[in-house]
Amino acid sequence: MPPASPAIVRTVADLRAQVAAWKAAGDQVALVPTMGALHDGHLTLVKLGQTRARRTVASVFVNPRQFAPHEDFDAYPRGEALDAEKLASVGCDLMFAPTPEAMYGQGFSTSIQVAGVSEPLEGAARPQFFGGVATVVAKLLIQCQADFAVFGEKDYQQLQVIKRLVADLDLPVEIIAAPTARAEDGLALSSRNAYLTVEERQIAATLPRVLHEAAQAVAHGGRIDEAEAAGKAALSAIGFGQIDYLEVRQALDLSRLGPGPMGQAQGRILVAAWLGKTRLIDNMAV
Amino acid sequence: MPPASPAIVRTVADLRAQVAAWKAAGDQVALVPTMGALHDGHLTLVKLGQTRARRTVASVFVNPRQFAPHEDFDAYPRGEALDAEKLASVGCDLMFAPTPEAMYGQGFSTSIQVAGVSEPLEGAARPQFFGGVATVVAKLLIQCQADFAVFGEKDYQQLQVIKRLVADLDLPVEIIAAPTARAEDGLALSSRNAYLTVEERQIAATLPRVLHEAAQAVAHGGRIDEAEAAGKAALSAIGFGQIDYLEVRQALDLSRLGPGPMGQAQGRILVAAWLGKTRLIDNMAV
Repeated sequence: MPPASPAIVRTVADLRAQVAAWKAAGDQVALVPTMGALHDGHLTLVKLGQTRARRTVASVFVNPRQFAPHEDFDAYPRGEALDAEKLASVGCDLMFAPTPEAMYGQGFSTSIQVAGVSEPLEGAARPQFFGGVATVVAKLLIQCQADFAVFGEKDYQQLQVIKRLVADLDLPVEIIAAPTARAEDGLALSSRNAYLTVEERQIAATLPRVLHEAAQAVAHGGRIDEAEAAGKAALSAIGFGQIDYLEVRQALDLSRLGPGPMGQAQGRILVAAWLGKTRLIDNMAV
Repeated sequence: MPPASPAIVRTVADLRAQVAAWKAAGDQVALVPTMGALHDGHLTLVKLGQTRARRTVASVFVNPRQFAPHEDFDAYPRGEALDAEKLASVGCDLMFAPTPEAMYGQGFSTSIQVAGVSEPLEGAARPQFFGGVATVVAKLLIQCQADFAVFGEKDYQQLQVIKRLVADLDLPVEIIAAPTARAEDGLALSSRNAYLTVEERQIAATLPRVLHEAAQAVAHGGRIDEAEAAGKAALSAIGFGQIDYLEVRQALDLSRLGPGPMGQAQGRILVAAWLGKTRLIDNMAV
């Protein structure tokens, strides 16, 4: 029987002491950074980490620095006890749940920017986002000193930003990318799905289908601009509101492709669209 | 007899392998980041590191990212063989001399900013400087994984910026501050002193004396604005050109003090002034 909950630590010193003890015993460590509100998608990240490292740590921290003032920081779902239970159910060894004060102490003044890959798409729609992400992820990686860190492809641009960050700062950690976990009807699992009404939840399931069709069209030699336009039209027709972007981009640096056929490039199609008051994102390989 | 030169490594992998071997043997490691052109001031940093750690590493890297296009990056003095000899003379164990390509690989996109303490004084005179310093120092600290890193008080604002950086990013290293090494006549040792003509070198020696007098005036209850004005006037009278700043500031965050008496604050007086084509800096406790 798994334990009722993993050990919970709240300070960097306690986190490092546990990680150091594991390493001294010859065990490798995988970190799964999360903002809590854990769902099965997060748990697949933990399980993937377990395939590479004997020990897994999940951090749970709703990072104020990656939310703009008008965004949903206060409303973002939180539930530590339930998060701990779910982590225990998959055998996660440790939950690191620091307070905002522990992460951003008095006089905190440092910020990390990753130019280029962070600028389009989410970076354009949410100018504060990736600076906040890069800073907190760098801190978590340095705090934990894990051998591996697992990030989901659901946040695909974030994954590429973090890979760039880790390479540029020589952080001694291997980034593991986890395929997007999806509900039976195909919707990508997301903590923000909890915001959807029943009706919106049904409409939301068309998002991956539309994305898949557009990806197929481009993969079969279709023009990128036409596939993007058709995808947006389909989303609007089914009931989506504002579409922040629906674009086929180069898969690693997210530079522009098109407007014609993709040719030999490695592509990724990415979307962010609103359904009522909820903003959904998804992406697929092309 | 000391060896003719310390071992030289040029890649992060080689650096980490050596540091890991030392740590595995139970030895602590102190890093002394430099831009080469080593003088006795640098060697006192190595010696200070040796009082805390069994093993010392000096990095030698003229960091292009902390020079503005009009500054002296190309002219900055370089001489690796002589640097290696000097390091050997004090028993430094390892010289890390990466190429610019090894430090900033293809697609490098990450920058680190430390707000607040980096903004006045050197930050105002050299807007590119501390961003470049913070980024390269973070990289060096992460690359080396040293237990200690030694920085000179000669670059006092840099020292405070780095302390802030290390605290904010939770870098697992203790920063050691080394008092400024001075020539017999009091001039702070600096690689840029090599630019001075014989006549300028004589005038330069008045810089610490003027600074000391101003510090004494403030320490004895004098007004800060008057001490600053008297110091600047003295420098101009003796032959200095542009004075970028001569200011008494709060010692840790470098916020403004004055214009009246300092009261109970911990102060630091800092100066940057030009002598011909050479820019000199110095500072003292108040």
